[in-house]
Amino acid sequence: MSDQEKLPHLRIVISCPDKIGIIAEVSTFIAELNGSLIESNHHSDLIEGWFYLRNEISTASMDIDLEEFKRRFTPIADKFQMNWFVRNTQKKRNLVIMASHSSYCLADLLHRWHSGELYCNIPCVISNHENLRSMVEWHGIPFHYVPVPKDDKREAFAKIEDIIERHNADSIILARYMQIIPPSICEKYAGQLINIHHSFLPSFIGANPYQKAYDRGVKLIGATCHYVTEDLDEGPIIEQDVIRVSHSCSKEDMVRLGKDVETSVLARGVRYHLEDRVIVRGNKTVVF
Amino acid sequence: MSDQEKLPHLRIVISCPDKIGIIAEVSTFIAELNGSLIESNHHSDLIEGWFYLRNEISTASMDIDLEEFKRRFTPIADKFQMNWFVRNTQKKRNLVIMASHSSYCLADLLHRWHSGELYCNIPCVISNHENLRSMVEWHGIPFHYVPVPKDDKREAFAKIEDIIERHNADSIILARYMQIIPPSICEKYAGQLINIHHSFLPSFIGANPYQKAYDRGVKLIGATCHYVTEDLDEGPIIEQDVIRVSHSCSKEDMVRLGKDVETSVLARGVRYHLEDRVIVRGNKTVVF
Amino acid sequence: MSDQEKLPHLRIVISCPDKIGIIAEVSTFIAELNGSLIESNHHSDLIEGWFYLRNEISTASMDIDLEEFKRRFTPIADKFQMNWFVRNTQKKRNLVIMASHSSYCLADLLHRWHSGELYCNIPCVISNHENLRSMVEWHGIPFHYVPVPKDDKREAFAKIEDIIERHNADSIILARYMQIIPPSICEKYAGQLINIHHSFLPSFIGANPYQKAYDRGVKLIGATCHYVTEDLDEGPIIEQDVIRVSHSCSKEDMVRLGKDVETSVLARGVRYHLEDRVIVRGNKTVVF
Amino acid sequence: MSDQEKLPHLRIVISCPDKIGIIAEVSTFIAELNGSLIESNHHSDLIEGWFYLRNEISTASMDIDLEEFKRRFTPIADKFQMNWFVRNTQKKRNLVIMASHSSYCLADLLHRWHSGELYCNIPCVISNHENLRSMVEWHGIPFHYVPVPKDDKREAFAKIEDIIERHNADSIILARYMQIIPPSICEKYAGQLINIHHSFLPSFIGANPYQKAYDRGVKLIGATCHYVTEDLDEGPIIEQDVIRVSHSCSKEDMVRLGKDVETSVLARGVRYHLEDRVIVRGNKTVVF
Repeated sequence: MSDQEKLPHLRIVISCPDKIGIIAEVSTFIAELNGSLIESNHHSDLIEGWFYLRNEISTASMDIDLEEFKRRFTPIADKFQMNWFVRNTQKKRNLVIMASHSSYCLADLLHRWHSGELYCNIPCVISNHENLRSMVEWHGIPFHYVPVPKDDKREAFAKIEDIIERHNADSIILARYMQIIPPSICEKYAGQLINIHHSFLPSFIGANPYQKAYDRGVKLIGATCHYVTEDLDEGPIIEQDVIRVSHSCSKEDMVRLGKDVETSVLARGVRYHLEDRVIVRGNKTVVF
Repeated sequence: MSDQEKLPHLRIVISCPDKIGIIAEVSTFIAELNGSLIESNHHSDLIEGWFYLRNEISTASMDIDLEEFKRRFTPIADKFQMNWFVRNTQKKRNLVIMASHSSYCLADLLHRWHSGELYCNIPCVISNHENLRSMVEWHGIPFHYVPVPKDDKREAFAKIEDIIERHNADSIILARYMQIIPPSICEKYAGQLINIHHSFLPSFIGANPYQKAYDRGVKLIGATCHYVTEDLDEGPIIEQDVIRVSHSCSKEDMVRLGKDVETSVLARGVRYHLEDRVIVRGNKTVVF
Repeated sequence: MSDQEKLPHLRIVISCPDKIGIIAEVSTFIAELNGSLIESNHHSDLIEGWFYLRNEISTASMDIDLEEFKRRFTPIADKFQMNWFVRNTQKKRNLVIMASHSSYCLADLLHRWHSGELYCNIPCVISNHENLRSMVEWHGIPFHYVPVPKDDKREAFAKIEDIIERHNADSIILARYMQIIPPSICEKYAGQLINIHHSFLPSFIGANPYQKAYDRGVKLIGATCHYVTEDLDEGPIIEQDVIRVSHSCSKEDMVRLGKDVETSVLARGVRYHLEDRVIVRGNKTVVF
Repeated sequence: MSDQEKLPHLRIVISCPDKIGIIAEVSTFIAELNGSLIESNHHSDLIEGWFYLRNEISTASMDIDLEEFKRRFTPIADKFQMNWFVRNTQKKRNLVIMASHSSYCLADLLHRWHSGELYCNIPCVISNHENLRSMVEWHGIPFHYVPVPKDDKREAFAKIEDIIERHNADSIILARYMQIIPPSICEKYAGQLINIHHSFLPSFIGANPYQKAYDRGVKLIGATCHYVTEDLDEGPIIEQDVIRVSHSCSKEDMVRLGKDVETSVLARGVRYHLEDRVIVRGNKTVVF
């Protein structure tokens, strides 16, 4: 993990069928441009025959720009049938956060952003409750209150989709947003829509996981940060963690302890996402 | 957790409906016998209205024996409708271990026993394979080979039950014994039959949990030590733990890493059980 | 750990020379008042011959008040030479927080307080920098800016001591306050002055622990929450935790990762302190 | 981490001054030989300007042997001033284990070796006590008893050095061998001599770390696997871990809990070493 994002450098992320010579070709390409590798990660999935690469490249000694880099790299990408992108890491992306009544994940993300730890813009926060408005606005971030009535969610989500688009969201973070996201948004923001689930998935899928954990008498509780797909709680997992509980914990204690795990797991997941460390393939992730 | 087991002391374990005055009455009883409390744990389950107690009592300054202690305590136990027992901690219990082909849990338990860390007798090891005989016999422990043919398990388990009884087993440890235990044995040894499951239950119940964990792309794998009941993988949980995995782990890596978690979780579970730290009620445990 | 603080109950905390009969006498006293034990913890330090007790008592069915409880309990306390106190858990204590330039620990404590997780008053925050004023004041908490010039710290700390007293501080939390506290304050608030040190003590005592950890090439970094005594970084430890690092972490990465550990370790330490779970004796703590 | 060692493949490990083009040149070299990268790790230390690489190469489709690989790679190595080696991963290395009276680390390593998890030869075990002979010999491994008298250690270590050489040791594991190794052996086996220290270094350097940890009242205890240098407990750290303790732990409990951490940390350290994942530079390690 690196804090180099603010230096002028490029990040290239690739996944493609595994073949001999990919690293050779990519790194030769970069070296010939006089690019210096700050961080370089590869993974070969031997079962699936699939290859993953993430390179951070210092451009201090390079004299081409991003567009030229893309243009010249395209033949290599085509040759190996790559899914790929290259990004100027100085350009901040737009993260729209959606929250409900609970403040802990949102407060944590806002503080990390405010203190400079999270390198992105937060163009707005959307919530179906009013109670967090003041906290959000203190950070200088617009707050949109969109109630989601039980009997007509469609209109509410049309409104939400509109707000998201108007703010040019690159990614959306569900910071304990307790509503099910409609398929249209899931599809449109596939791989860009992140949720925190308050259990160690696949344990305790669905509602009330802490109650279920309490009833089952587990000795650890956890949280799971994952990309949202149409299948509830089944999307690709980005990060997970657990905390120890015991018989002396009431359900309320579990909720309280779990909050800390949710908060830190979501923060790590969002960071990995912003640093393009997460590559999705099927229902699994590579996290460099 | 205490290593005081070898001193002459008593251990009393109680669970009963919660009422005012139980601790007062129990500890007054002990103090009047001039017993000194080495370790004293209580828990009140406020939801269920149930009370749990475990006391380690030094008998150095007491001058009554175990039977007399029981006789005098009985009226208190009756008054509060206690489930209870009192035990001389110097008396070793008989732990029969059942294993299959895999050696790691068995080797660990045998070493802990051999080096004096596990305070019990191991009157025999039962396995449906021959490959671990020499390891067991090197420890001076009888090894019983009982094959379990797919088409007639009944006879095999009758034989096993007979061996268990002949060796006066107090408890049975399934150290990666890969066969389903018939209901008759589950019932007879309820609360005395311990299994290690190679997943973080309730995730990945049933067979091949590592394959399932690999396929789901989880970021932590775990193990669960639990009492065996008729409902497979649903018994009361004694102990759990997890270890971090990543995309770079093959299924074989997960199996290898998981072995270490299984081994340590089972060892801790067996220790808690032998120290009478685990009190079962319904499908949950209190672990002092 | 319990969230029952808001119910009308009492908490009694005792430490004294270990003798037969203490639990019996204390719990009989409580039972005779018709008090019901919500949570009950004891510890006998067999080496030191010292006894520790913490009881949470529901007063729902008791009909005496705190003063009467104290008056009646005093003879028992005297008999066993107890250090003790009893507290109405509904009465909030005053926590003064001191911070410097860094916001993360302060922001976390303020959020936990604001969301009701931390049961106390925060009468003011004192800092030697102005940058966190707006954040503190947004929470409705007075902010006192007291610069601490290198050449005359005495006057600054006289001012600080005055502010602390005016706000009737019960305890003081140093939330990454980077100044050494003068002995007079350490003594006056012995056992009430809590610091977070950014290393796993006793590793890397003093300044720049992350640099030292980086230079030593450790594989885990940590944080330590402890009571402040005159001996820098040598006070009784309340709580510690660690996080894994690797060769790929720069010193800046370590600082960033360490922040999360510091934040959660301090939050847990403050909670244990507020719940009277920490009993200090000499340079060690019992944490129930 | 991979279990592919037994397939016919090569492993190349490199460290050298960081320059543009190293990965390009190395991976082009491998691709031109038709070698397929199973696992590929790099690290650029931006502060030190130093580069590290570890590649596992499947040779299934290559038709040159190890010597030819070395011959052809040498010009590249010279050009970049590399410290490097290439190894046939099928060739087992010789690990001599030294132990004292305690059995736990030795038993664990022997079991991992015996069950095929540790890919190496163990040509002999050397101990200054006789008590573990039978355990070692049961594994079919020669046991050398070399007492180390306080007043003449020189002769003992001359004998030990002779045994080590006769058995063609590639590496030496100190599995709780409680004697200080003389500088001559430290130098001769620099980077090949591994120790397990029973504390979280740099905490509690030297003798009796558990006593010191107990006296200091720490809340976590740990273990450190490191290469041995002449400076006691100051060598490059390979792996560390910790376990939670509390006031209820006696020193004996800490010793017992610590054993499990020591055992697993040493096992991981030895595995990383055997897989050539550890690259030492100065007093620090890169662990791929």
